[in-house]
Amino acid sequence: MDTYLGRVKAEILSIGDELLLGDIVDTNKPYIARQLVQLGISPTYFQTVGDESEDIVMAFKLALSRAHVIIATGGLGPTDDDLTAACVAKALDVPLEHREDVMDQMSARLKRPKDQFTASNRKQALLPLGAHVLRNDWGTAPGIHCEAPGSRHIFLTAGVPREMKGLLGTWIVPWLKEHFPSPETITIRQFSAFGIPESRIGEQLKDLMQPGNNPDVGTRVADGVCTVRVVARAKDPAATAALLAPAVARVKEVLQEGLFGEGDETLPAVTARLLIQSKKTIALAESCTAGMVASLLAATPGISAVLLEAAVVYSNEAKVRTCGVREETLQAYGAVSAETARELAEGMRQRARTDIGVSVTGIAGPDGGTSAKPVGLFFVGVATASGTQVYERSYPGLDRQLFRERAAFTALDLVRRVALELW
Amino acid sequence: MDTYLGRVKAEILSIGDELLLGDIVDTNKPYIARQLVQLGISPTYFQTVGDESEDIVMAFKLALSRAHVIIATGGLGPTDDDLTAACVAKALDVPLEHREDVMDQMSARLKRPKDQFTASNRKQALLPLGAHVLRNDWGTAPGIHCEAPGSRHIFLTAGVPREMKGLLGTWIVPWLKEHFPSPETITIRQFSAFGIPESRIGEQLKDLMQPGNNPDVGTRVADGVCTVRVVARAKDPAATAALLAPAVARVKEVLQEGLFGEGDETLPAVTARLLIQSKKTIALAESCTAGMVASLLAATPGISAVLLEAAVVYSNEAKVRTCGVREETLQAYGAVSAETARELAEGMRQRARTDIGVSVTGIAGPDGGTSAKPVGLFFVGVATASGTQVYERSYPGLDRQLFRERAAFTALDLVRRVALELW
Repeated sequence: MDTYLGRVKAEILSIGDELLLGDIVDTNKPYIARQLVQLGISPTYFQTVGDESEDIVMAFKLALSRAHVIIATGGLGPTDDDLTAACVAKALDVPLEHREDVMDQMSARLKRPKDQFTASNRKQALLPLGAHVLRNDWGTAPGIHCEAPGSRHIFLTAGVPREMKGLLGTWIVPWLKEHFPSPETITIRQFSAFGIPESRIGEQLKDLMQPGNNPDVGTRVADGVCTVRVVARAKDPAATAALLAPAVARVKEVLQEGLFGEGDETLPAVTARLLIQSKKTIALAESCTAGMVASLLAATPGISAVLLEAAVVYSNEAKVRTCGVREETLQAYGAVSAETARELAEGMRQRARTDIGVSVTGIAGPDGGTSAKPVGLFFVGVATASGTQVYERSYPGLDRQLFRERAAFTALDLVRRVALELW
Repeated sequence: MDTYLGRVKAEILSIGDELLLGDIVDTNKPYIARQLVQLGISPTYFQTVGDESEDIVMAFKLALSRAHVIIATGGLGPTDDDLTAACVAKALDVPLEHREDVMDQMSARLKRPKDQFTASNRKQALLPLGAHVLRNDWGTAPGIHCEAPGSRHIFLTAGVPREMKGLLGTWIVPWLKEHFPSPETITIRQFSAFGIPESRIGEQLKDLMQPGNNPDVGTRVADGVCTVRVVARAKDPAATAALLAPAVARVKEVLQEGLFGEGDETLPAVTARLLIQSKKTIALAESCTAGMVASLLAATPGISAVLLEAAVVYSNEAKVRTCGVREETLQAYGAVSAETARELAEGMRQRARTDIGVSVTGIAGPDGGTSAKPVGLFFVGVATASGTQVYERSYPGLDRQLFRERAAFTALDLVRRVALELW
């Protein structure tokens, strides 16, 4: 991390028994960390403590001893369990102060006159002396910003991700940008590809991935998607752009047509967007994925204009009735076969009169595999006006759900290539 | 948390730059925490640090000062970045020691003779003096158990969730059970219901939810599912069972038929299981959910025996062609209407000749809403031999994806009731 982060250190705290008990997964910390990285601030420590006054005070004192920026989430609500503001006051050794301006904001937000506030509401207007209030347009508890000796800054937000994100993006990030300007420009670009092994990408980018390089190149993999990140640091955007250009060109060369997106783009979203933009209509016949391809595409608004029809055709009967697969094909080759995949894709395309017909048929397990057709085997058929291609693939090690996801992504990637006229 | 956890405190550490940079979400901590809670051990602090020797040593020293059990994940790999074992040795002030027994285990695991080991492999055999080795059957890096003065114990595992879970379940949990026997029995039961507001459940269980109660009753909500947790602590299982019985009876009474599952059961899995067990066949006509209901059911093995067919019928043409919806119905009432939902469900049931036909049609947004039919409105139709019922619901505040999930869960819950013959 030293290789490209600045010297301003940040510490992220989460407060709440529900985290310590394992009831919820803390997604706030990685979200906040990514924002800080973009600002050239180093997220260096994370802490999580429960709703215990002593532990919270200790956590803030520790953070104040080693970080310049402290961002804490949780414990700002109205109940007796919500202790964060009081504990920050203790850690800073300042009293709590009743803030009429907070009462006004809450009154506007709750659409309730101040004189009807409950004791719980009033509690939320008790802030450490001298705190700055960050208006919360996404919930009731205001964000809080406290300055500490030694140019240290504590920011508090509610733990609800929507409120945290609102307060962070609207108040905290702009403030940090202004007051902790990065001594250099950090530019991050990410490129994602499906179906290329990380080891092969790593081998081909080996020289760029040496520690200490600038730009710094790294890979990671999740669900069959390999993401290459390129981070350049230099004095200004023109200089980072100049540093990035050759590295980005190399990454694109290595990923080739496997490259589906930049930044946070997902394969389903990219595929849906390409279909909508190119006005290519599509119909799906899904067996083992059972609606997952359709459902992933449907997360993108506007998809209904091109995704005209999809069918889950588990049973042989449905394969015959809906897609016109021939009984002889099923008998001769079986439901999981290249031949059935072909007829499913072609039949679905004809039925829905679409530009593209796609089928997925495979053995998701845990049962139903044979030595000739083991669990993890699947076929994707893609039919277009220029013909039909069938793609065979096997992921023997995955469990049922991961296998289905991998098969769905394989189909989506093939559709993406068709939409781009790459395939 | 004090109300029901024991006095043995645990601290969970995660080590790795990828966590601090926000590249990955830490799911290890909540998983480990839940295991500890079941043992009567209190997960009291979480820390995350990067691949920096000084920070790692400091984190372990801090943990040793306040926790009895320390479980740390990450940093046990073969690369120069992997510093955990060396840092624990420093924190404990003991030297590292080359362990031939670890070399033997790795040799067996890697199927490679020890004399062909690389320097990286050999590094993984350097353990803090006196450490116990936990055989890793799920990866290369052995788990490590170090004893520290004052009956404190450090357990180290790889950060890969599969390896962590294997080492935790096989070695660490049994060890903790034996050496930190809970002074009392803690029994946790969880009950989940869909579609009942948490506030209503909270109101009805108010007396049980008072702080300090034993059993301790708490609620949480996610994706429309409210989960009620009941935790009893007493000297033995018979005593916790006696404490739990009346509280569990009350919870069941309040949740009534909304109660779909116990423990970690999910609504899709319960619904799928009930369909498979009752051998009730089902066909789905999905518009706004677009395959999500089918895909959620299909996560359960064996579903293909009862989920005979499903169709994504976005277009009016598909609604007519696949489900026999009448043109007049679409013209008079629109695609998102009780009438269309009814004909979709009935048509799908007839087409696939199933016991149950289900339809979902709604306005997922962000566009396409009107004042009469706003974004967030949807209808679920359920057709059986005894007739058809249509359910209207609206979730105006949710984004497209959350809306689709909520609509899918609504349909699943209705199917569950049908399978149980409640509806």
